Amino acid sequence: MKTLSESNKNRLLNSIRNIPDYPKPGILFKDISTLLNDHTAFSLLIDHLCDYYQDQKIDFVAGIESRGFIFGAILAYKLNAGFVPIRKPGKLPSQTYQSEYALEYGTDTLEIHQDAFRDIKSAKVLVTDDLIATGGTAQAALKLIEKAGGQCIGACFAIALHTLPGYQALSKLTSVYSALDG
Amino acid sequence: MKTLSESNKNRLLNSIRNIPDYPKPGILFKDISTLLNDHTAFSLLIDHLCDYYQDQKIDFVAGIESRGFIFGAILAYKLNAGFVPIRKPGKLPSQTYQSEYALEYGTDTLEIHQDAFRDIKSAKVLVTDDLIATGGTAQAALKLIEKAGGQCIGACFAIALHTLPGYQALSKLTSVYSALDG
Repeated sequence: MKTLSESNKNRLLNSIRNIPDYPKPGILFKDISTLLNDHTAFSLLIDHLCDYYQDQKIDFVAGIESRGFIFGAILAYKLNAGFVPIRKPGKLPSQTYQSEYALEYGTDTLEIHQDAFRDIKSAKVLVTDDLIATGGTAQAALKLIEKAGGQCIGACFAIALHTLPGYQALSKLTSVYSALDG
Repeated sequence: MKTLSESNKNRLLNSIRNIPDYPKPGILFKDISTLLNDHTAFSLLIDHLCDYYQDQKIDFVAGIESRGFIFGAILAYKLNAGFVPIRKPGKLPSQTYQSEYALEYGTDTLEIHQDAFRDIKSAKVLVTDDLIATGGTAQAALKLIEKAGGQCIGACFAIALHTLPGYQALSKLTSVYSALDG
C-alpha cells in the first residue's frame, strides 16, 4: 500500500476550496468540487486510493449517496468490483434494508438493496464517501452492509476531519483510511 | 467510435432489472443497480462509453445528481477530464447558476457552480446521466453548462427510453448517444 508524498498531499489539499460559515456559521466547509474539476488532482487522488486497495480482492465497493458515488464508482471500476449504491430513503426500487442514524438535530436513514451483494457469501465490501466528520453516516452504512450479508473490510474517504470523533468511533468497527486530513 | 455488439447489448439489457408499477402504477422502472453490481456488465458499459468519446478531447464531464455521478465520474477519470457535479438546489456551496425544468406536476431545479469550468474558454463538456426519458433534466443541464461558459459537445446516457419524446427534443440541441434502448 503506497502512501501519498507530502508534496502530493499539499497539491490535493490546495485544490480543495474552504468555504467559511457554510452550511451554517462557524463551520468551515470543505468544497471538493474544485478538486474534482482539476483532472490532475482528481486522478492523483483516485490512483492513490486504488493503489491502497489494489491487493485486497474486494468484491464490491459501496458508495454513500451522493458524493460517495463519485469515488465509489471509480474505485469499483478500477478494482474489478461491483458498485453498490447506499441511498437516501425511497430511492432504491427493490426490497431494502434501512438503517437510521443520529444527526445534530433529529435522525436520518440510509437504505441498501437486500440483494446488493448478489448472494455471494461474505462478500468483501469496501465502503466509500468523500469525507468523514461525525462518522454517523459511515456507521449506518456498515450496518447495512452487514444486514445484506456483506463483510465490510474497510471504509475509505478522501478527507477526514480528525478534530471530530468520527474517525475513532468508526475505526473500532472496521479498518479506516483517508487520503487527506482536513 | 465503436459500436456495441448485439450480444453485448443483450448482456447489458439482461443485467437491468425491470420493476413494474414503480414509482407508480403503469411505469416499468429500469433498475440499473443490478447492472452496477455485476462488475463484468459494469465494465463493459463503461469501456464502451469511453471508447465512444475517446477522441473528442473533452475538458470536463458533467454528471447529473445522483446516478449521473456514477457514470460521469468514471468517464471524467478515464477521458482525462475534470468532473463537474450538476446538483439539486442548495447542495453546491459556492456561487451557482440555476435552471428550472418542468416535471409531470410542478417544476424542479438544478444548479452548477459558476466557476465549474475553471475559466477555460469554451471548455468542451460532455453531460451524462444514467437514463433519458422526457429529457427535461438533460435540457436543464445543457442550459447550465452554457451559462457557466462551457460548450456542450454531447449528452451521453446508459439507456434511452425511445418511446418518450426526450431523445428527439434533446438531439435538436446537441449530439446525443445512449448505449442501450430501454
